[in-house]
Amino acid sequence: MRPFVFINIAMSADGKISTRERRQVRISGTEDFSRVDRIKAESDAIMVGIGTVLADDPSLTVKSPELRAGRVAAGKDEHPIRIVVDSAGRTPTDADILHKGTGKRIVAVSRAAPRERVEALAEHADVIVAGDETVDLAALLAELYRQGVRRLMVEGGGTLIWTLFEQGLVDELQTFIGNMVIGGKDAPTPADGTGFLREEDFTRLRIIGTERLDGGLLIRWGVEKG
Amino acid sequence: MRPFVFINIAMSADGKISTRERRQVRISGTEDFSRVDRIKAESDAIMVGIGTVLADDPSLTVKSPELRAGRVAAGKDEHPIRIVVDSAGRTPTDADILHKGTGKRIVAVSRAAPRERVEALAEHADVIVAGDETVDLAALLAELYRQGVRRLMVEGGGTLIWTLFEQGLVDELQTFIGNMVIGGKDAPTPADGTGFLREEDFTRLRIIGTERLDGGLLIRWGVEKG
Repeated sequence: MRPFVFINIAMSADGKISTRERRQVRISGTEDFSRVDRIKAESDAIMVGIGTVLADDPSLTVKSPELRAGRVAAGKDEHPIRIVVDSAGRTPTDADILHKGTGKRIVAVSRAAPRERVEALAEHADVIVAGDETVDLAALLAELYRQGVRRLMVEGGGTLIWTLFEQGLVDELQTFIGNMVIGGKDAPTPADGTGFLREEDFTRLRIIGTERLDGGLLIRWGVEKG
Repeated sequence: MRPFVFINIAMSADGKISTRERRQVRISGTEDFSRVDRIKAESDAIMVGIGTVLADDPSLTVKSPELRAGRVAAGKDEHPIRIVVDSAGRTPTDADILHKGTGKRIVAVSRAAPRERVEALAEHADVIVAGDETVDLAALLAELYRQGVRRLMVEGGGTLIWTLFEQGLVDELQTFIGNMVIGGKDAPTPADGTGFLREEDFTRLRIIGTERLDGGLLIRWGVEKG
C-alpha cells in the first residue's frame, strides 16, 4: 500500500519550471498561490527532492492562518509532514524545511549517505533509510503509508518527478501553465531525468479538469493505470 | 514590415516535443491532425528549422484534397510556400520538403553557407541569403513579406522557435498539449536555445482560447507587445 500521490507543478507555456540558471521565477500569481496553499493544507505530507531544497530552500509550510487553524481544529498538525528525498544526505542542517513551522519533517536517505550527515540530519528530522545508492521510492512510500500518510503532494523537482513517473508511482498531475515563454535547452522542466524512449512506455493521462487562473491555465491530469 | 508569425507545436503534458533521442512520436491524434492541416492551408508559407528537416524529413504539404482544391479555387498554389531556415545549407537535396507536392520552396541560408551547397539547393528551391553566420530572421521575414507572404506558420524546431521569441518576431503560439508524460532532461522542448535568464525579458502571453482535442488540450496564446 502507498499514499495517493499527486504532483503539483507550475511551468511556462513552453514547459519550463525555471531559467537555465535555475533561478526561482514567478510563473503563477496570487490565485494560484492560494490554490497551492489549499491543496498543501489538504495533504498529509509534502515531498521535494534535494535539488529543490538546494536551489530554492523552500519551507513547504501552509501560509494561510485560516488553513492552519482548520488543520488544528481537525486534530492535525499545523503543517503537513515535510519530506526531502535526499539519497546522499546533502540537506543543509540550516535549511528552512528543517526549521520553519512546527511539526514533523522526514529526510529520506539511501544506505550510501555518510553516517555523519545522517546523524546531523537526525537532530532535526526523522530519517528514513531506503535503498542502497539512491532512495527506493516505492519502499519510502510504503513506509509513509505505514506511518499514516494517505495523501502525498510532490512539489518537485524534475528529477524526483521523473523517477516517480518512471516507477509508476503517480496518481495525479496538476500543471499550472503560466502566460510566458522562458525557453532554454538546459532549463529545468517538470519531468527531467532520462525520460521515456519508447512510446509504449509513456505515462498516459486523462484530463480531469481545467481552470483559468492568473492569466494562465491549470490542467488536472489523472494517470491512466495498466 | 513582416508577416503575421504564428507557431504551432505539440508537446506532452510535461513540455516535451519528442524523446531525448528525438524520435518522432505521436503526441496528438486525428482531430489535431485535421486542425493542423487546416491552419496550414490557411497560411501563405510554412517554415521549419534545419534540425527538424534532418530529424523528421517533413514535406509540410497540405494533406486534405478538399483543402488543396480550396486553395486552387482561390487562385493560390496547392500548398503554401515551404521554407527551411538553414544557416549552413545542410538541407539534403533529396529531402521531402524539396520534392513532395507542387509549388514553391525557399531555403534561407547565411553568407557562411558553402557555395557548392547553395548551388545544389538552388536547383530545387529559391535560395534567400540573409545574415553572416546564421540566418538573419528579421531580414528573412522582411523579404518574405516583400514576396507576398502575409501569414507564416512555424512548425519547429525548438531552436528556430526560441530565436523567433528572443527577437520578438512571434505574434501567436498554438500549443497542443498531449495526454502523456515523456520526461527527459535532454528531450527537446518547444523553445530551446539559451532561454531567457531574466524575468523581465520573458515573452509575455495572453490566452486567446482553449479547446479539447484528442484527449489533450489546445491553448492559443497571443504575444503581448511592448
